Amino acid sequence: MTTVGILGGGQLARMMVLAGAPLGLRFVVFDPAADACAGQLAPLQVGAFDDLDALAEFAGKVDVVTFDFENVPAASARWLAERKPVFPNPAALAVAQDRLSEKTLFRELGIPLPPFADIRSRDELAAKVAGFGTPCILKTRRLGYDGKGQFRIRGAADVDAAWQALGAQVETTGLILEGFVAFDREVSVVAVRGRDGEFRAWPLTGNWHVDGVLSASLAPAVATAAQHDTAIAYARRVAEHLDYVGVFALELFCRGDELLANEMAPRVHNSGHWTSDGAETSQFENHLRAVLGLPLGDTRVLGRACMLNWIGAMPDADAVLAEPAGHWHDYGKQPREGRKVGHANLRADDAGALADALERIGNALGRQAQVEPVVRALRG
Amino acid sequence: MTTVGILGGGQLARMMVLAGAPLGLRFVVFDPAADACAGQLAPLQVGAFDDLDALAEFAGKVDVVTFDFENVPAASARWLAERKPVFPNPAALAVAQDRLSEKTLFRELGIPLPPFADIRSRDELAAKVAGFGTPCILKTRRLGYDGKGQFRIRGAADVDAAWQALGAQVETTGLILEGFVAFDREVSVVAVRGRDGEFRAWPLTGNWHVDGVLSASLAPAVATAAQHDTAIAYARRVAEHLDYVGVFALELFCRGDELLANEMAPRVHNSGHWTSDGAETSQFENHLRAVLGLPLGDTRVLGRACMLNWIGAMPDADAVLAEPAGHWHDYGKQPREGRKVGHANLRADDAGALADALERIGNALGRQAQVEPVVRALRG
Ligand SMILES: Nc1ncnc2c1ncn2[C@@H]1O[C@H](COP(=O)(O)OP(=O)(O)OP(=O)(O)O)[C@@H](O)[C@H]1O
Ligand SMILES: Nc1ncnc2c1ncn2[C@@H]1O[C@H](COP(=O)(O)OP(=O)(O)OP(=O)(O)O)[C@@H](O)[C@H]1O
Repeated sequence: MTTVGILGGGQLARMMVLAGAPLGLRFVVFDPAADACAGQLAPLQVGAFDDLDALAEFAGKVDVVTFDFENVPAASARWLAERKPVFPNPAALAVAQDRLSEKTLFRELGIPLPPFADIRSRDELAAKVAGFGTPCILKTRRLGYDGKGQFRIRGAADVDAAWQALGAQVETTGLILEGFVAFDREVSVVAVRGRDGEFRAWPLTGNWHVDGVLSASLAPAVATAAQHDTAIAYARRVAEHLDYVGVFALELFCRGDELLANEMAPRVHNSGHWTSDGAETSQFENHLRAVLGLPLGDTRVLGRACMLNWIGAMPDADAVLAEPAGHWHDYGKQPREGRKVGHANLRADDAGALADALERIGNALGRQAQVEPVVRALRG
Repeated sequence: MTTVGILGGGQLARMMVLAGAPLGLRFVVFDPAADACAGQLAPLQVGAFDDLDALAEFAGKVDVVTFDFENVPAASARWLAERKPVFPNPAALAVAQDRLSEKTLFRELGIPLPPFADIRSRDELAAKVAGFGTPCILKTRRLGYDGKGQFRIRGAADVDAAWQALGAQVETTGLILEGFVAFDREVSVVAVRGRDGEFRAWPLTGNWHVDGVLSASLAPAVATAAQHDTAIAYARRVAEHLDYVGVFALELFCRGDELLANEMAPRVHNSGHWTSDGAETSQFENHLRAVLGLPLGDTRVLGRACMLNWIGAMPDADAVLAEPAGHWHDYGKQPREGRKVGHANLRADDAGALADALERIGNALGRQAQVEPVVRALRG
């Protein structure tokens, strides 16, 4: 009997537990919050991610460690890795935690990306904004998620406001300036690499964000075969360089034929949630298979699949459940503004049927704006 | 937040919990055994099924009650139904618990079935065996499962041995004699009926038993369109008559073009386990949707699907996980002879690919005999 320890007990851990139980796995989830939603399905240890006594207790209960949360202090991950196998490895986690490190790596690996610069002072910010031109984006290097810790600089006059918003974090999270990409589309590669180096990717996924938060995904993405192959090759290059084990996501911008890397997430990813109902094997199951050294499952999409994120509160389920292949994912969380509380997955054999289903759901829930870009992509 | 109470905490409850968590459901599982395997995933209340104090406590924790175990005393189900909604209803449960009642109902509903007779004494047994001819089968009316509580009478000389084996149970479980059907194939209808009367059935499933225990299932079954439609119409007739809510299985024998009913199971059923990975909606999810009054999900099979039962102990998972659409279901139980401890599901777009996968698995695990009848059915 194998027990998997998961650092972080949110919806990603919860969905790993659901995928892992049929594999005969037990879990222990570690989270600072006593109401972490994965705790509804697995034993939860409440503790701080930097509390070594708590982590020692946790290590004593598990056979292998993985992550639901990428911002576990790298030092804690390294400390655990001296006691139990930890996947992905702490060095890979450390790179992916820091926008500057990951972008530097992308550049080293020959993966195109927007211009970026480490920012250590207001003057440096002003100089780099002048160099990059506007618009551009100031971001924290660490601890950003769902578009938080970002400031869009529309003109040179915004430098002061940007520094006022984020300058205080220059010593804690660090800051990075990025050129703004006027992208046509956003896509992600969700991929998995096994302990033996086997690499598999799900088909490229198209993503739509609202206010920096993922709103909808579609698989396969609208992309050329060359973009599809190139994006997956980039993901593979990163994973091999980092000796990465498990599932990760590489987010990219498409601008014309160009592909520009944005960032990687060293964990199962929101843009892979469609795989639970739309792929032969889900990202959650394959992550666990990878971490445990089991054979990886097939990553093909079954027809067309899409995901709609529910932010803040769950809508009524009936419109989704009434669709032939509508599946509901409620994370068991309390509603709260801006919080990811669940999602819906839809699958269909062809694009037209999926677009029809999305339109019905959009109308029934008054969420036409959420489904509209996906419908447009499906109708070509 | 809705909490579903499940009477019985075995693998069926466990798979319901796994299917229900994404619907946002909470569960409480009630079982006499402290190590009931569903208790790994949901709060477990340990108690006897006839302990009204324990049941009252259970009723206080849940919003709706359903079953993993069909042999909960009908009186307990009725008592609970006065306190909380119980699905399927206790009267339906009572019919399905008793081979005599269910067979009498099948006959009343015009569903063909083998001859049967209530047996109350050794003399009555001898007389009925003479009337039916041999072979025939003496079974307990109640509490039989996996072929337990059965005695095959091959000739009149076996009457004494049969009575010796089961006669003591004439007052407790009751006894029934059934004519033996020299069937060509066994099939089952797994179907679901909603609180509003909506009825859906998964495609007819073909089943192979070894020593009275299910060994393998294949969906869709090898059957004519007429058999398919007739079997599903029988299931619907039974469900409507009983005002049944939830998933149930109707097991049938095929002999030439004939279909003869064997028994019904008032719960999710082993012959529907393939639906977890081979159908648009699993039997576990649709059972919960039905019980909660939610729209029912699509019951179509995605290509061809089959299930291999693991009895006694789990084999090595790798051969199954290495198949493109091989999925593993370990119930988290201790190994024990004759115990259902898990199963594998396999899916493929066509029959040839599924047969090939089964052969590889049979060879890798030394289980050629288990896969062989399924392969034969697939190769036509
Ligand atoms: N350089 C950029 N050019 C254009 N748009 C950008 C850029 N950086 C971020 N965005 C937009 O903001 C979204 C969120 O940004 P980013 O992925 O950096 O943030 P995050 O907080 O890490 O988000 P997530 O939690 O979704 O990974 C992007 O998906 C994109 O829509
Ligand atoms: N009348 C019969 N004629 C021929 N075979 C029979 C008959 N009754 C039972 N069998 C064989 O024994 C198997 C198990 O019998 P039955 O379904 O009555 O038992 P059970 O203990 O209720 O099984 P389960 O738990 O699988 O529902 C059947 O699937 C069939 O293979």
